[in-house]
Amino acid sequence: MESTISALKGYLEPQSVTIIGVSTRTGAGTFNVFEVMLNSGYKGRIFPVNPKGGEILGKKVYRSVAEVPEVSDLAIISIPRTAVLGAVKDCTAKGIKSVAIITQGFADADETGRAMQQELMEAVKGTGTRLVGPNTLGVANLHNNFYSSFLDFNKSTTDSAIVCQSGIFLAASLDLTAGMGLGIDIGNASDIGFNDVLEYFALDEKTRVVNMHMEGIHGGRRFMAIASEASRRKPLLCFKTGRSEAGARAAGSHSGSLAGEDHVFGAAFRQCGVIRVRDVEDMHYLNKTFLAYPNMSGRRIGVVTISGGAGIATMDACADHGLEVADFTGDTLKILNDMSPDWMDVNNPADIWPAGMSRGYLNIAKLSLDTVLSDPNVDACICITPAYQDPENNPLDISEVIREVAGKHPGKPLAVWIFGPSREKFRLRLESEGNVVVYPSPDRAARSLAMLCRYHTEIKNRPAPGYETLGEINTAPVSELITGHLADGPVTVNEPVLDMLGAYGIPAVVSRRAANLEEALALAGDIGYPVALKIISRQISHKSDVGGVSLNIRDEAALQTAYRQMLQRVKSNAPGAAVEGVLVQSFRPEGVEVILGIKRDPEFGPVVIFGLGGIYAELFRDVAFRIAPFTREEALAMLRETKAYKLLAGYRGAAGGNMDAVADCLLRLGQLALEHPEIKELDINPLMVTPGGALAVDARAVLEKLK
Amino acid sequence: MESTISALKGYLEPQSVTIIGVSTRTGAGTFNVFEVMLNSGYKGRIFPVNPKGGEILGKKVYRSVAEVPEVSDLAIISIPRTAVLGAVKDCTAKGIKSVAIITQGFADADETGRAMQQELMEAVKGTGTRLVGPNTLGVANLHNNFYSSFLDFNKSTTDSAIVCQSGIFLAASLDLTAGMGLGIDIGNASDIGFNDVLEYFALDEKTRVVNMHMEGIHGGRRFMAIASEASRRKPLLCFKTGRSEAGARAAGSHSGSLAGEDHVFGAAFRQCGVIRVRDVEDMHYLNKTFLAYPNMSGRRIGVVTISGGAGIATMDACADHGLEVADFTGDTLKILNDMSPDWMDVNNPADIWPAGMSRGYLNIAKLSLDTVLSDPNVDACICITPAYQDPENNPLDISEVIREVAGKHPGKPLAVWIFGPSREKFRLRLESEGNVVVYPSPDRAARSLAMLCRYHTEIKNRPAPGYETLGEINTAPVSELITGHLADGPVTVNEPVLDMLGAYGIPAVVSRRAANLEEALALAGDIGYPVALKIISRQISHKSDVGGVSLNIRDEAALQTAYRQMLQRVKSNAPGAAVEGVLVQSFRPEGVEVILGIKRDPEFGPVVIFGLGGIYAELFRDVAFRIAPFTREEALAMLRETKAYKLLAGYRGAAGGNMDAVADCLLRLGQLALEHPEIKELDINPLMVTPGGALAVDARAVLEKLK
Repeated sequence: MESTISALKGYLEPQSVTIIGVSTRTGAGTFNVFEVMLNSGYKGRIFPVNPKGGEILGKKVYRSVAEVPEVSDLAIISIPRTAVLGAVKDCTAKGIKSVAIITQGFADADETGRAMQQELMEAVKGTGTRLVGPNTLGVANLHNNFYSSFLDFNKSTTDSAIVCQSGIFLAASLDLTAGMGLGIDIGNASDIGFNDVLEYFALDEKTRVVNMHMEGIHGGRRFMAIASEASRRKPLLCFKTGRSEAGARAAGSHSGSLAGEDHVFGAAFRQCGVIRVRDVEDMHYLNKTFLAYPNMSGRRIGVVTISGGAGIATMDACADHGLEVADFTGDTLKILNDMSPDWMDVNNPADIWPAGMSRGYLNIAKLSLDTVLSDPNVDACICITPAYQDPENNPLDISEVIREVAGKHPGKPLAVWIFGPSREKFRLRLESEGNVVVYPSPDRAARSLAMLCRYHTEIKNRPAPGYETLGEINTAPVSELITGHLADGPVTVNEPVLDMLGAYGIPAVVSRRAANLEEALALAGDIGYPVALKIISRQISHKSDVGGVSLNIRDEAALQTAYRQMLQRVKSNAPGAAVEGVLVQSFRPEGVEVILGIKRDPEFGPVVIFGLGGIYAELFRDVAFRIAPFTREEALAMLRETKAYKLLAGYRGAAGGNMDAVADCLLRLGQLALEHPEIKELDINPLMVTPGGALAVDARAVLEKLK
Repeated sequence: MESTISALKGYLEPQSVTIIGVSTRTGAGTFNVFEVMLNSGYKGRIFPVNPKGGEILGKKVYRSVAEVPEVSDLAIISIPRTAVLGAVKDCTAKGIKSVAIITQGFADADETGRAMQQELMEAVKGTGTRLVGPNTLGVANLHNNFYSSFLDFNKSTTDSAIVCQSGIFLAASLDLTAGMGLGIDIGNASDIGFNDVLEYFALDEKTRVVNMHMEGIHGGRRFMAIASEASRRKPLLCFKTGRSEAGARAAGSHSGSLAGEDHVFGAAFRQCGVIRVRDVEDMHYLNKTFLAYPNMSGRRIGVVTISGGAGIATMDACADHGLEVADFTGDTLKILNDMSPDWMDVNNPADIWPAGMSRGYLNIAKLSLDTVLSDPNVDACICITPAYQDPENNPLDISEVIREVAGKHPGKPLAVWIFGPSREKFRLRLESEGNVVVYPSPDRAARSLAMLCRYHTEIKNRPAPGYETLGEINTAPVSELITGHLADGPVTVNEPVLDMLGAYGIPAVVSRRAANLEEALALAGDIGYPVALKIISRQISHKSDVGGVSLNIRDEAALQTAYRQMLQRVKSNAPGAAVEGVLVQSFRPEGVEVILGIKRDPEFGPVVIFGLGGIYAELFRDVAFRIAPFTREEALAMLRETKAYKLLAGYRGAAGGNMDAVADCLLRLGQLALEHPEIKELDINPLMVTPGGALAVDARAVLEKLK
């Protein structure tokens, strides 16, 4: 890790740069890295390399890397792909530690390109030289006016950083993240990857907000560890693309990324405190919001507006994003009403237009904003003011008032929605001291404040995760059970899963195999009625779909009928299935039915699933995910994320179910998944939950040998 | 209607205007309507009125309306609220037909204000004089440089109109709707209302898009009739606020509007082809989109991009909004691949950066955009191009190429997402001919194209609604049943509802009242086993919540047990309820359970409801609404809007249910609601749906005398 950090310092704070592949063509449209760097204000030493030698823009050009009179901190390679390997070897020979490869056509392209990228990786192995790219716009440190790009960046420097998989986030940072300080486009990430850069930015003291543009990730669990720690220091914003099937396909061909299953990323982000942005506009405003406002300690919003209609729209937006309408104190209401015409009853939103028209808009705006932000029942204020005319000589320009009041209340955001043709001019005035953000709609303002509040109330100060290791589990029998079933390919098992669950302390029904009716009758007598019968067949994975389940069998006579009818149904619904027998199980007919499960993500590992039982989890996609391990609080949060919560809480007078018992099962399932990677997937369907506890009634798993 | 249309012409195309309440103070910050109008470029005659007389800005001021030498088409009143009534009477005396009252403090304020507004309405009754407002910024016709505002508007004139309940939509139209042509702020709508203005804009030939800002509506059914017709001529966009509880409360105090239940508005908008916008930014881009693009005939999108990463984000956005990735033809693929480096495999999104860098960006952009838009598998194209540097002398400025290619393919939108610090400059160039819209994110582009497509494929050419009147219904017995139950307040009835349903052709279980066990046994014998028993008690409206339902009773012995157990349960769960007896019903245990219902909205009238049965409709709020009458197609669409559709279609191998039968029940329920306004609400819960048909198993209604 130490070496990666120092390599990244080489990329971001080089004193000396060698540029390999400097074109002799200069000027607009030539995209000359050397020219851009010369003009950027960068203070370090630059050594252009081109086999032809000579001069470019009055500077000596070196014929080779070897000829350069010093060992640069960073080399930038921008030459055809077939020549890149040679250039990288020149760099390793010279002892250059940080190399950025701009060239496209490697893992982002064809088979040949993929093989060539492999060669690059082998060329640096053991040399101490690190690679960024290929297929990257490179690196940027706007604090030092340094960037490795063939495009001239805008210079809107902020205390934020971005790690991305596309150069547009560097070149268009003013737009996409409202400026930046540090930026690295990891491109194909042949060596330096997402996690390396994130770790660097998390530790960088100048960086107050980290933005991420992620198409896919290698090392999901390391990402979670780094992000989980970093999100306690500073907000992490992530724009994850490749969410959709079409997007994921395109991501694969763009940077060789595996976009992965989106809900797994969603779970990972939630667990490690990463705020997921919705699109580039969201990213822009969230980065701005986090830079401008140091805190927000609750969700109660006061609105001060020049338009009743705009106030209503803002209330709607606040509700959409889970913010609350502040309940102004009597003192606040008195001040607001005293300044307004008699016929008005001012409340929240506070319409200050009539008062402003009769008593001067600047005075009234100042008084009302200061009053609202001083109110102990208010956590943030949204001010709605017009930008109808140019702010010069405009009696409705309250920019200075807003900046001043915002400065007085640093712990409470003063957000502004302005509208009108002069919006941009007003925005520049309002944002000039960096303590106010102007939003183009109440929706943007409310969304941004909601995420700000979430960070400061839920993410920043959350305790370090207390993962429980559940004691007294004898894993040996489970390993034996699994080993006993493993075959060459994936194998589906049913009834042994209940025993595995039992070994991990998850209550499961007693379940025994019977080869025929006589054995079933005998077992039912042992287990005790009522019982359930379930078909056993390797060809049948969803028993109930083929009529292979019979529940609540109350006595011997009923069992005989149920047995015969079930075999008949299965025969007609699944004529090809070889029936091995039936399971006889103790039956628990009452309770809330939920589903628990395990699946495995190639990057994040075991994922635990919770949802409503029956067909409804699937029908409504009402399912919560966590990556194991997770805490008991997170297990309980999973319940709250689904509608099953209302059922477990006792819906419309029903008994409900024991949530702690379900949370316990989820934690135990997580540990089972972590300790037995051969379990590829597993479902408990249903887990019956009663006020007294939970019971796994049926389960199946897919087992596979580790590769 | 004719008189309303001509009155609105007076507001929007006045040749002569009298301004009542002209201040002697002029200049910045005085908000002088007369001064603003003089400077606006308006060509009509303006007559300022102020009792002091004299001159303002070199123009004669009249001491009274009577003194004005002609009868103006329009009078604008902006004086303290106590003087407004006198001024309105002056206008009626003079014979002025159109009056706009800017003054606040009427129904938007206190009791006194509400009474004063009533006086204004009485003052004009029968005079032929109409009112806009009070509490309005008035009217605007930017085509004629005319507006009645004390604020100077921007002059961004487009062929769109807006009817609103807040002046910000006139004063800030450049921002909020990207410009406008005609605009009316109806304010408190004491006379001229939302529907009047909508009707005028619908017929106005210059207006190509109608925007609406709605807080509430009076005359919901007239709104639907007008909008339903108008949406076939031109797109109607509506920003409905007061959606949230807090917003609705604020709307009530802002313009005296009743915000109403949001899902009823949602249903009304859907039924009459109104496109609901999400916020002001959405409104801005949708209005622009509809003005720029005359058509879009499908949802297949081709993406031409300079950035792979941006292409991926765009694919995600398209998927989010229900657009599809176009499947390029072989011809298109050949052209795109021939122009690109060998190592690239170009598809959709088409990354043209490598080709552009080697063969000239302008040529490549033109070729690829033209190729993609010529592809028969493409309905629209999103072009992603950078705005890194100033477009002057910028080799990446393809604005002209884009405008030209867009002009060649008028039936297929060419939408643009650009990013970078020079975005605004690029935007102005790209939009200069009005045939291209520049979006700030792929999300905005995809959302806008999705709504454009929806309008042109679903709304514009939809057939006039074919409402069916279901014949052979003898309503007399239903009226008798209802009349027999009506009392002073609302009355809940249960079993007679099944008979009402039966009369309207909705199949319902046979259901008979039994006062005791003996009667129940006798009735069950008549009806035939299996039967269901349900408790009868006026104090119990949700029978199953108190254990008052027993299903699938197979024989006499079971009935005896079930009867006794049910009475015991009810006694312990609802000790205060007076049990009148039990219902004995034929029982149909199999099928998909759905819920049908009726409720009444104060403005829109009878609303029919469909949802999944059991507790799930409520748990998931998975319910569809339509305002009666609606068509059979809409009834079927209601099914598709809920997850019940999947169950009815036969989920995971289950039998499913007859959708036509459910649609038929919905239509019949609509007619029942329309013909019997005393039915305040009604639920069929459940309607059991089998492949063969549907059957109402239980129902309840609340009846109330008409006021």
